[in-house]
Amino acid sequence: MPQTATAPQTAPDSKLVYRFGDGESEGDAGMKNLLGGKGANLAEMSRLGLPVPPGFTITTDVCCAYYAEDKRIPEGLREQVETALKTVEEKVGMRFGDGENPLLVSVRSGARASMPGMMDTVLNLGLNDTTIAGLERKSGNARFAWDSYRRFIQMYSDVVLGVSHYHFEEILEEIKRDRNVSLDTELTADDLREAVRQYKERVQAETGNPFPQEAHEQLWGAIEAVFDSWMNPRACTYRGLHDIPASWGTAVNVQAMVFGNMGEDCATGVAFTRNPSTGENRYYGEYLVNAQGEDVVAGIRTPQPLTIAGKDQGGDLPSMEEVMPDVFAQLVEVFGILEKHYRDMQDIEFTVQQRKLWMLQTRSGKRTAAASIRIAVEMVREGLITREEALQRIDPLALDQLLHPTLDPQAPKTLLARGLPASPGAASGKVVFSADKAEDQARHGEKVLLVRIETSPEDIHGMHVAQGILTARGGMTSHAAVVARGMGKPCVSGTSGLVIDYSKGEFRAGGHTIREGDMVTINGSTGEVMLGEVPTIQPQLSDDFAELMGWADTTRTMQVRTNAETPADAATARRFGAEGIGLCRTEHMFFDAGRITAMREMILSENTKQRRAALAKLLPMQREDFSAIFRVMEGYPVTIRLLDPPLHEFLPHGEEEMREVAEAAGLSLSQVKARSDALHESNPMLGHRGCRLGITFPEIYEMQARAIFEAAVEVKQQGMEIVPEIMIPLVMDHAELKQLRAMVERIAAEVTGAAGVALQYLIGTMIELPRAALRAGDIAQSADFFSFGTNDLTQTTFGISRDDASNFIEAYRKQGLLAHDPFVSLDPDGVGELVMIAVERGRATRPELKLGICGEHGGDPASIRFCQQAGLNYVSCSPYRVPVARLAAAQAALAENHEKTNH
Amino acid sequence: MPQTATAPQTAPDSKLVYRFGDGESEGDAGMKNLLGGKGANLAEMSRLGLPVPPGFTITTDVCCAYYAEDKRIPEGLREQVETALKTVEEKVGMRFGDGENPLLVSVRSGARASMPGMMDTVLNLGLNDTTIAGLERKSGNARFAWDSYRRFIQMYSDVVLGVSHYHFEEILEEIKRDRNVSLDTELTADDLREAVRQYKERVQAETGNPFPQEAHEQLWGAIEAVFDSWMNPRACTYRGLHDIPASWGTAVNVQAMVFGNMGEDCATGVAFTRNPSTGENRYYGEYLVNAQGEDVVAGIRTPQPLTIAGKDQGGDLPSMEEVMPDVFAQLVEVFGILEKHYRDMQDIEFTVQQRKLWMLQTRSGKRTAAASIRIAVEMVREGLITREEALQRIDPLALDQLLHPTLDPQAPKTLLARGLPASPGAASGKVVFSADKAEDQARHGEKVLLVRIETSPEDIHGMHVAQGILTARGGMTSHAAVVARGMGKPCVSGTSGLVIDYSKGEFRAGGHTIREGDMVTINGSTGEVMLGEVPTIQPQLSDDFAELMGWADTTRTMQVRTNAETPADAATARRFGAEGIGLCRTEHMFFDAGRITAMREMILSENTKQRRAALAKLLPMQREDFSAIFRVMEGYPVTIRLLDPPLHEFLPHGEEEMREVAEAAGLSLSQVKARSDALHESNPMLGHRGCRLGITFPEIYEMQARAIFEAAVEVKQQGMEIVPEIMIPLVMDHAELKQLRAMVERIAAEVTGAAGVALQYLIGTMIELPRAALRAGDIAQSADFFSFGTNDLTQTTFGISRDDASNFIEAYRKQGLLAHDPFVSLDPDGVGELVMIAVERGRATRPELKLGICGEHGGDPASIRFCQQAGLNYVSCSPYRVPVARLAAAQAALAENHEKTNH
Repeated sequence: MPQTATAPQTAPDSKLVYRFGDGESEGDAGMKNLLGGKGANLAEMSRLGLPVPPGFTITTDVCCAYYAEDKRIPEGLREQVETALKTVEEKVGMRFGDGENPLLVSVRSGARASMPGMMDTVLNLGLNDTTIAGLERKSGNARFAWDSYRRFIQMYSDVVLGVSHYHFEEILEEIKRDRNVSLDTELTADDLREAVRQYKERVQAETGNPFPQEAHEQLWGAIEAVFDSWMNPRACTYRGLHDIPASWGTAVNVQAMVFGNMGEDCATGVAFTRNPSTGENRYYGEYLVNAQGEDVVAGIRTPQPLTIAGKDQGGDLPSMEEVMPDVFAQLVEVFGILEKHYRDMQDIEFTVQQRKLWMLQTRSGKRTAAASIRIAVEMVREGLITREEALQRIDPLALDQLLHPTLDPQAPKTLLARGLPASPGAASGKVVFSADKAEDQARHGEKVLLVRIETSPEDIHGMHVAQGILTARGGMTSHAAVVARGMGKPCVSGTSGLVIDYSKGEFRAGGHTIREGDMVTINGSTGEVMLGEVPTIQPQLSDDFAELMGWADTTRTMQVRTNAETPADAATARRFGAEGIGLCRTEHMFFDAGRITAMREMILSENTKQRRAALAKLLPMQREDFSAIFRVMEGYPVTIRLLDPPLHEFLPHGEEEMREVAEAAGLSLSQVKARSDALHESNPMLGHRGCRLGITFPEIYEMQARAIFEAAVEVKQQGMEIVPEIMIPLVMDHAELKQLRAMVERIAAEVTGAAGVALQYLIGTMIELPRAALRAGDIAQSADFFSFGTNDLTQTTFGISRDDASNFIEAYRKQGLLAHDPFVSLDPDGVGELVMIAVERGRATRPELKLGICGEHGGDPASIRFCQQAGLNYVSCSPYRVPVARLAAAQAALAENHEKTNH
Repeated sequence: MPQTATAPQTAPDSKLVYRFGDGESEGDAGMKNLLGGKGANLAEMSRLGLPVPPGFTITTDVCCAYYAEDKRIPEGLREQVETALKTVEEKVGMRFGDGENPLLVSVRSGARASMPGMMDTVLNLGLNDTTIAGLERKSGNARFAWDSYRRFIQMYSDVVLGVSHYHFEEILEEIKRDRNVSLDTELTADDLREAVRQYKERVQAETGNPFPQEAHEQLWGAIEAVFDSWMNPRACTYRGLHDIPASWGTAVNVQAMVFGNMGEDCATGVAFTRNPSTGENRYYGEYLVNAQGEDVVAGIRTPQPLTIAGKDQGGDLPSMEEVMPDVFAQLVEVFGILEKHYRDMQDIEFTVQQRKLWMLQTRSGKRTAAASIRIAVEMVREGLITREEALQRIDPLALDQLLHPTLDPQAPKTLLARGLPASPGAASGKVVFSADKAEDQARHGEKVLLVRIETSPEDIHGMHVAQGILTARGGMTSHAAVVARGMGKPCVSGTSGLVIDYSKGEFRAGGHTIREGDMVTINGSTGEVMLGEVPTIQPQLSDDFAELMGWADTTRTMQVRTNAETPADAATARRFGAEGIGLCRTEHMFFDAGRITAMREMILSENTKQRRAALAKLLPMQREDFSAIFRVMEGYPVTIRLLDPPLHEFLPHGEEEMREVAEAAGLSLSQVKARSDALHESNPMLGHRGCRLGITFPEIYEMQARAIFEAAVEVKQQGMEIVPEIMIPLVMDHAELKQLRAMVERIAAEVTGAAGVALQYLIGTMIELPRAALRAGDIAQSADFFSFGTNDLTQTTFGISRDDASNFIEAYRKQGLLAHDPFVSLDPDGVGELVMIAVERGRATRPELKLGICGEHGGDPASIRFCQQAGLNYVSCSPYRVPVARLAAAQAALAENHEKTNH
């Protein structure tokens, strides 16, 4: 269960470094585990003959060995790096550390899974007091050369030497004030030379050592820093959130620098081959003239649109299509090659150096759920991928964001500002200005909206708990935008009308001043920022969505039902494709104001006669509940669970309310208190509940069974088909079920006999106690179906009360003792074994036994995969999870087929 | 699990009736299941040539068929009964229902297991207005004849016709008042004839029908009534208490009447071949001249001793040995034959009719634990039985009564009265005068002493919950005495100095008036009744006990350890033969006044540093705890469980106490309350406890491990051998145990390294969660031993909180849904399967894994039998249960050998 960083040792003669670039490469896209995503794709692009600056990748195995050997560089690596570096020198015709014709390199991390911005990067490496002269002469651009050196010292010192970047920003601000200028670009080459001098002094002062001048020393410092960044807190948090094992490690990519900041014929950009927000098949991206790559994603300068068409969202800045039409044409050609080759939408980084296009990265692009559906369905139509591939490409959990309500267009809105529609969806929350505050408030159950000038990787934990993210700066590919889309959270970025004052804890926009804690709504699909909480409506699902779901339905073998106890929920679930109700709880029906009194009368009864009188009042109400649900679910099975919670849950706790109840029931306050005390339980989860109520107070279950059958008869008499399935909860032994089944059958015979109506029905039980799973062979004698109540089964199997788990479960996760929260994803090793045992034994007794799951795991894709393996007939989940379950069930069926084919 | 009354149907040609008597018999003692105990033994005695009045037994199968067929007499029975009756008529030379020479019969129940007094009996059946004349003439005793008829009408009406006996008692009282006499025996034949007349009138008035005059009608009425009595509430309760399945059914014995009440040369009696209280090899019994059998056991007349030697306990009444020496000699001969034949002490009923001895019943006699040991050991010495048989004959649970403290002979006592020493042992309790009151008070946790003029089967439920029973009337074989001995409860009967007034709720004795609720002590070994609660001392165990235990120890294969957490408990357990400590809980050690403050300081700490400071105070105390226990257990293993309960159990609940804690800890009251609230749990059983504390607050377990190792080192330095076994509780996954094991090993290395002492120790875990049982294969990687915590494993497997189970478990037992309380006797089907799984998987990983049980099941014989089957190495139980476990383990080993031999 725990993920540990044990790793294969690298043998001295093993290949630790893979070369790429200049149309040749030692790796390919299939080697992601070894080369990381970036390295494998750089190799692949080289293979495809695309213009990739030459370089090499140090494998992830090296990273693992580095950690396994107490952060020592493994044997053989130095030699292989030097050899590879020589190849690069030969290809570009430059020499690393050479004063005349210096080769500069970038050093970047690249793990198996994309972890944007989580680890460290160093650019312009190889610059020193000697090579700067060569760069100046070769580029013919002194300002560029000194700016590069200045940037390198800052970046290297921050990443490798641990000298924080604010030291260097301070120096630069000082110089700008001296020179009386306000923009970096207004500084001259001499100004920058002065900056470099002061930077080096500051490094000496802070570290006690001069800034390293030896290029190879620089290189090894950077390589180790990248390895070290694998374990930095940001990266660990990110891995925790995304279930990425620490044991994977990161690769390191060392690559010849190309420069987007050498002049006005240079540029750098980020592009998607399709729109990652909507999925529309149009190029999508941003670029900056005379800039280095990090400038685009950092969100410091507002980038320009890639295409003329893209200008409609970004404002008036000229597009690359207009400014550099020849380079743009090359780029479009590359887009086509890459999408056809990878058969997926690509997220691309490129640099233009003196009108020559260089590819720095390609990968499958992150996208919103809506985009993922549209892209997949359109790619099937384009013949690029199969339906099965389309189904497998979409993360079922991501569908969730499509299904929830969106802002009501009819509702009145007070628009505060308009930014970029960076990640779709609407979110309302109380404004907070820091990630820590967001986390703190969210822990107290508040819905918060994180508002930042711009976000950085340090803000991840706050973004994770926020309803949405609003930033004043940064484009569609800024940190905030990329991360929010990945998380499926609404985001509006680059909202220039927003003036944030962290110190006052407020922002101003549209003439309003919004303080921390005020409610604000954002619409990440339009970029709107609105005052207060804007009401929502149900979303319209696209035709692509319907088509994909249709493919899922014909692919999956398990049915999908819903957990619903109101006609409204049942109707929602039907709309989402539910094929029945798998769990209709009956307890919430009693909390209604009109009913709780009769319910309490029933509980306070001192004998069976009084109890029956109170139950007689509840009977017609229950009958109405069921007939309403039956009508909505016409033609589909409806599983109704008889009363489950302990009776004390229905009694009031406050003295005032107790007094009211006492009056209504004609009792004294002390009588009510005494009854309440008598019902108190030390461990209600393991107490007098479930079918134990049916055994001790059979009249309660009799009333419920009567209500169900009377409702079914009524609906049937109206010409509708319905098959009620009566579910007896918390059975621990066959004897209980046998006795209660006989009772239910007796009531059924009475009701249908009196009405003269024949009625089909099933009687079954929940398997939610370990003993029930073990005794399933006996229990199946009296059960037409089993429904696995995996919430309670998890509680009893682990001995963990879900209500109390928060006290320690976080510590378990942090210490790596629990890979998953077992209440979110079904534990296959313990709970799962009990499910398997119950399935096997139940079916051995009764081969036609119907099997389903109705715990919350029924909506979790990993758990649905388990249910498929266990051979269940259906899963049941909350209404909004129904499409998630349909897709996950399809994926599970495909995975099963795949396994069968391979074995 | 449920016991239901489904039964084999009797085929029409099957044998339903078995004849016996007059030296011939169709059955034998091996047919108890079919003929019941009484019927089988009557058949066996016949075979042995003993004088048994002829009769026949209707089988238990008939009873089952009777219930299965909705209380109809099965086909073929009538014919077989009539045929058998004819045989009886021929043997005795009398005719059933004949006016001249009438045969009278008794109709008695007789189940497989003895259920004394629980079911119905009818004597003198066959009397009517015609046959009375024949009886009168034949006996030459009109008074006897009419008294018999009167008794018959009363008994038959009560049992068969449902006319309560008080109707008849009322009539008899009226006649006695009329005649101005006070005793029944003073009534003349004419008076009794008048009573019969009025009895018949009353039957007519109450039932609307005349008293049945036809003898065969009487017979079938009585047979059905006996069958019906199998399901009367008394019988059902008794079966429930003694685990007798309802499906067994009862046989019916129809037997020619012999009369102990025909005159002064007649008698009736009850005898044991050895003393059932002490086991002494002397005849023991009581008889009454001119009486019917029921008179002796009913306790209405004070019976006379059987032997001259027996007179020392019973007073001055003449013994049978003196009064009827010839008959007594016959009886002694029979005693010898029966004991040799059955190889066990016999409980015998006999009747003397006109100096001829008739045997009416023999069975293995109930006896006290002390008697059972003495008898078994002496029979081994006598060569009657083997050691193995001796071990198998003793109910391990019965030993319990020998082990507990007895009254201190030095303590001052106020003697109130002296009665018969009917069932040994001392008991103190608050006086109650009814069984219902006893039950009610006991439910509220009171220790009660049930005081009755005499007891009857209706009092069983009260006797069951009382500490002891005290009666004013009845002999050593009265209902109270027999039942109390069976239950192992102290009883003093026939306490003539006791004047009980139910209406005032008091009794007077020795010049004191004792009211309900006053404390009284009885000594059932001496017959003393004393005021107040008399102090107790440890019992002296007999040499026979020691010998038997020695046999048990050489027979058993499992070790027996104890659950103990104080040196005193450990010493007690050692004295009882414990071979180590299987569970030393550490939590109770913290409740000491001197420690709870430091414990609370620890809990209220706001950070690790504060917590460590508080723990440092507890360390020396814990070290002392452990070294004291290690000294007592020198040379034996001691398993110490690290802290298990949730921390909130240590915090105070009342505001006053909270205030004190706040002051001591330098906190505000509201801080203490807040911390207490934060620690509150919905289901503490499933909460933040066990090793979850060790994971979240490692410093707690570190302190405990340090205390254990420091204590062990200290003891070892003093030259004693000790092997501490550190037990990690509530493990659900291997990851937890692995991490905590590493911690404990680190502390061990630190402590032993610092002291320069080598120390052997084990680290293991409790298996007390279903998941732990399932994952035992992994867990065993880090465990030297498993100890099954079957209390918690039962709670989680069943989903039943033991604290809350009382609300429904009784209903389950009454409805036959639970055969045993799973917290008393380990559930082999559910919990047992998990234990088996864990044993198998654990040993597969680590063949030398040491396995034990430390739940309360460790002292339950049925569970110990299971542990043997599961292959455990040891059981651990409370100190006073250690001998019980030693014997039960021996029996389990014998049973296993027996099974192996048979397969």
